[in-house]
Amino acid sequence: MDAIQQLSSGLDTIWVVLTAAMILLMEGGFALLEAGFVRQKNAVSIIMKVFVDIAFGALIFYFVGFGLMYGKDAAGLLGTTGFFMGGDLTHIVLNISHETYWLFQCAFVIAVISIVSGAVAERINFRAYILYTIAMTGIIYPIAGHWVWAVGGWLGKLGMVDFAGSAVIHALGGFSALAAAMIIGPRIGKFSADGTANIVPPSNLPLASVGAFILWFGWFGFNSGSTLSATNTSIGHIAVTTMLAAAAGSAACILFTMMRYRKADPPMVINGALAGLVGITAGCAFVSDVAAILIGAICGISMVYATEILESKRIDDPVGAFPVHGVSGSIGTLAVGLCAQPDAIREGTAGLFYGGGFSLLGVQALGLVTVCVWGFVLTWGIMKLINLIVPIRVSRDEELVGLDVGIHGVPAYSQEDGFLDLQQLKNGKS
Amino acid sequence: MDAIQQLSSGLDTIWVVLTAAMILLMEGGFALLEAGFVRQKNAVSIIMKVFVDIAFGALIFYFVGFGLMYGKDAAGLLGTTGFFMGGDLTHIVLNISHETYWLFQCAFVIAVISIVSGAVAERINFRAYILYTIAMTGIIYPIAGHWVWAVGGWLGKLGMVDFAGSAVIHALGGFSALAAAMIIGPRIGKFSADGTANIVPPSNLPLASVGAFILWFGWFGFNSGSTLSATNTSIGHIAVTTMLAAAAGSAACILFTMMRYRKADPPMVINGALAGLVGITAGCAFVSDVAAILIGAICGISMVYATEILESKRIDDPVGAFPVHGVSGSIGTLAVGLCAQPDAIREGTAGLFYGGGFSLLGVQALGLVTVCVWGFVLTWGIMKLINLIVPIRVSRDEELVGLDVGIHGVPAYSQEDGFLDLQQLKNGKS
Amino acid sequence: MDAIQQLSSGLDTIWVVLTAAMILLMEGGFALLEAGFVRQKNAVSIIMKVFVDIAFGALIFYFVGFGLMYGKDAAGLLGTTGFFMGGDLTHIVLNISHETYWLFQCAFVIAVISIVSGAVAERINFRAYILYTIAMTGIIYPIAGHWVWAVGGWLGKLGMVDFAGSAVIHALGGFSALAAAMIIGPRIGKFSADGTANIVPPSNLPLASVGAFILWFGWFGFNSGSTLSATNTSIGHIAVTTMLAAAAGSAACILFTMMRYRKADPPMVINGALAGLVGITAGCAFVSDVAAILIGAICGISMVYATEILESKRIDDPVGAFPVHGVSGSIGTLAVGLCAQPDAIREGTAGLFYGGGFSLLGVQALGLVTVCVWGFVLTWGIMKLINLIVPIRVSRDEELVGLDVGIHGVPAYSQEDGFLDLQQLKNGKS
Repeated sequence: MDAIQQLSSGLDTIWVVLTAAMILLMEGGFALLEAGFVRQKNAVSIIMKVFVDIAFGALIFYFVGFGLMYGKDAAGLLGTTGFFMGGDLTHIVLNISHETYWLFQCAFVIAVISIVSGAVAERINFRAYILYTIAMTGIIYPIAGHWVWAVGGWLGKLGMVDFAGSAVIHALGGFSALAAAMIIGPRIGKFSADGTANIVPPSNLPLASVGAFILWFGWFGFNSGSTLSATNTSIGHIAVTTMLAAAAGSAACILFTMMRYRKADPPMVINGALAGLVGITAGCAFVSDVAAILIGAICGISMVYATEILESKRIDDPVGAFPVHGVSGSIGTLAVGLCAQPDAIREGTAGLFYGGGFSLLGVQALGLVTVCVWGFVLTWGIMKLINLIVPIRVSRDEELVGLDVGIHGVPAYSQEDGFLDLQQLKNGKS
Repeated sequence: MDAIQQLSSGLDTIWVVLTAAMILLMEGGFALLEAGFVRQKNAVSIIMKVFVDIAFGALIFYFVGFGLMYGKDAAGLLGTTGFFMGGDLTHIVLNISHETYWLFQCAFVIAVISIVSGAVAERINFRAYILYTIAMTGIIYPIAGHWVWAVGGWLGKLGMVDFAGSAVIHALGGFSALAAAMIIGPRIGKFSADGTANIVPPSNLPLASVGAFILWFGWFGFNSGSTLSATNTSIGHIAVTTMLAAAAGSAACILFTMMRYRKADPPMVINGALAGLVGITAGCAFVSDVAAILIGAICGISMVYATEILESKRIDDPVGAFPVHGVSGSIGTLAVGLCAQPDAIREGTAGLFYGGGFSLLGVQALGLVTVCVWGFVLTWGIMKLINLIVPIRVSRDEELVGLDVGIHGVPAYSQEDGFLDLQQLKNGKS
Repeated sequence: MDAIQQLSSGLDTIWVVLTAAMILLMEGGFALLEAGFVRQKNAVSIIMKVFVDIAFGALIFYFVGFGLMYGKDAAGLLGTTGFFMGGDLTHIVLNISHETYWLFQCAFVIAVISIVSGAVAERINFRAYILYTIAMTGIIYPIAGHWVWAVGGWLGKLGMVDFAGSAVIHALGGFSALAAAMIIGPRIGKFSADGTANIVPPSNLPLASVGAFILWFGWFGFNSGSTLSATNTSIGHIAVTTMLAAAAGSAACILFTMMRYRKADPPMVINGALAGLVGITAGCAFVSDVAAILIGAICGISMVYATEILESKRIDDPVGAFPVHGVSGSIGTLAVGLCAQPDAIREGTAGLFYGGGFSLLGVQALGLVTVCVWGFVLTWGIMKLINLIVPIRVSRDEELVGLDVGIHGVPAYSQEDGFLDLQQLKNGKS
């Protein structure tokens, strides 16, 4: 039996480590997606923000966030142990080590902050962004996450379910992104005086596409890995619903944009796949294949409408963070209340469409609203606070010249084929 | 024993899910490879086709293809259950769930259609491509696959073996690509009046290269994962022969193009690695390491010749889909008949070089020809049929301006650093 | 019990195959990192060198290197069996097959040679590079690796530990890179007559960034996979220290360059993450989380200084191979002697900070110096030797026009939207 236990914990450990690595690779996906969608003059700056996400995010989550999120519960509201992985964590009973569990959760927190990075692209001050990252990964996300996922969290105790985070990760990230985009304001020139939105082609769509494919790949780790156990019998089903929802989101956007815009619109198709993935994240283990297809398709089409509505409201979200994560995350969270198959979540529970009544749907809605309001309000307040310390927006000159050269001193792309003689440049000879 | 069975099926499930995810990431590889090889004005359009492959491919294979391929056999010719994953599938006896099996097979079907997408790049009508994708993933591939891989398929019953699909995936895809390239005709300007081929440098070779590296990575999933079981003792050997064949294909093309063209030719080296990978796909579990090296090298060099021959025949295959997949897939399928080690396939069977006589080689040849003719003829017929519904080729204007702007309304790359004021543009002020 | 053994070896096999595949994907990472950092006119040539690494590296390591490294020991100095995977390898006792072990080690050797490729970028002769690759993967690395890692190797017997290769892979690769960069000399125009270094912006920072993210992903395979067993209880800890060190290296470089250069410097931040990863490679299984953070941060900052020092010495290392791999690899190797936790390496052994005295530190230092000197001297000698056969440096004209067009006959990027009529070009009509 010892040999079996050893195998079992080894198996679960490599499952979680491999899927965590896949989720962390999604940062590469976010970086490319965002760098491809923004203008060339800001492509490096958005990637630097992803480095901030992963570097500061991981450290702050190690120091503070994990403890607040998964530490010993206080009143259903927050955790009180586990800072620096220390203190009593005996309430976390898993077949993997607490450290391994931390790694997986770390991959999650980094995803949340990366969602926000897209919405403030091309105009946020780099120092302000570092401070916001600390707030998100140290406070905003861990506390909301505690409510839903931690032992003793009040929303979890009420019965809310969110398998891999349509609400906790995506809706929270998406509504935080919305607040951040609103408070920082639109990019210079995005809206004309009469309110019409101006556009510019993405700087590098092939790059954005590969970002989407990497995100798609990572999502198999995101959703299937959330079992935290390789012997969970839902793994195959989770991977299949993930695949079907992504395919449906993408296919729906292809067909829908062909009807609506008379062309299959590449940025919408890319975001449609992601919308489908976001939408299935809460229910991947609980809904049927057909439901997954419907959820994916609805999320894809809703994303298109949400993008149009944001523009009409003069809110500037350069990469569509809110339509993809906020809207689809919300739909996905509610979809569990509608489509959860009988006994899939727990004995005696089912979604509305399966005769489970409104109780599950109600708690899902309550949880969703709570999490979204939390993200929106705290982001709003913290951004205001940060603005007192350092301006959250770059100067007009920096924005016009672009953040790459303006802030980081280097362009994303260079066709220079010699060397720049710095001495001569300084002497004004060149 | 229950605990052991649980571990065993958990282990097999994560193995198949992880390798399926790796294969699906290959779509990112195909997208980059093709976007890098084509002209810049068509880079987005080819990526949109890969989105069609994965989105429509997955759904159609779920609705129809899987059933035709792996459903209960009728006369050795096609499957009759398993549509929407329903009906009697008890003949599929695996240690993983049928759904998990579907996911892995879904990754395969998407690879097949992606092969064709390269051959028709830069000139196929987007709507026609969607229809063709439905035909390929719903009919052409599933039926051919049934013959070789399904319980009761007639070629499999004759003794044909194709471990991970040199014939079923690559030769089928390659010959379908050839038919499609021939029927749609060469790109405007590809051939001069006197028949000489004109060339243009690929738009983005670094992108194409990373595509190849991603494909190489995914191939470990493709070949090793085809065991469908993590305790299959061939896994290590499969991964090693895969690595060696790819290395040999690449090294052979480096040395061969240095001799033939006086330079190590980057597109050929990239395709050489892929040719080696395609070639070893049928025999990866059955041939020796040295045979793998030889197969890889021969496929690499054959790919170069095949590319030249295609051009001399005035057939325009922009990314080399036929030389890589059609030719190397054929070589790899036949190589099993030559190099299969005694008893590696099944007791008493060996390739010609190991004293197994011509029987295995004969059935491999028969199966190969059948599959290639099937792919070629059905693609030809279906393309003709589609052409009655919607022209399979874009207009001359669209082709000249490029499909990105012409069909999808957006360029792949943009260096714009402001916004386009749409209102002003409409009013003709700008 | 048989069923358990079967599961156990299946589990270990897929763990090693999957992590080996992840390490091999790092070649894609190296290719992008280097292609993004060099000038556009040399982006393909550096990727072609990575193809040489992986193609020739794998084959030579199969023919010769593996035997020299892991074959039956002779006098602690080198292996004498295992060429072509043949001969007596019974001294290698693992739960995976020898072939599977080869695959993992093959992924390592390819990483070593890829380190050197960056340092000689933009000026090395392609044929000379092939010869050097053969020497590195056939002789230099295998022999040094034998000393530390093989059964019977003299440094290993003395007690040197290097979990996943800070010394054997990175310091060796880094010091070899330094020798190669020195002997081949700086790129034309890199240094002015007065010795000041001239710079040029990297050609494609988004590409370099995705390279770094892929490398980060692969490093989870690199370090965790080095257990060679999925039931090793350190796997979770290894993955966590790997993550923390990378985050710390990256965060340190963000903050440090903001202080030192008044801007978060993108290339430094990218290399900072890699420096942290290199630094933790030796001790990932032995040091605490906090030590991992410190090691990562120190490596990141040291990398910045080392970059400046190299430039002041007029040594031209285009992608920072020595600062990242040589310096951080050295720090990481010594850090084991300082920070190894009691009994983590073996009963009774600890680093200096844990009361283990100087004995471990001493042997780490001895091993490090030995390996670095070996790499530096052999690279120097072999480069001199190669130079007698074929000039190691390209001609001045080739360097000025760029190696892509100069050597490989094709540019990395092309915006051509028609075809080049070769016949007309030859007739001078165009």
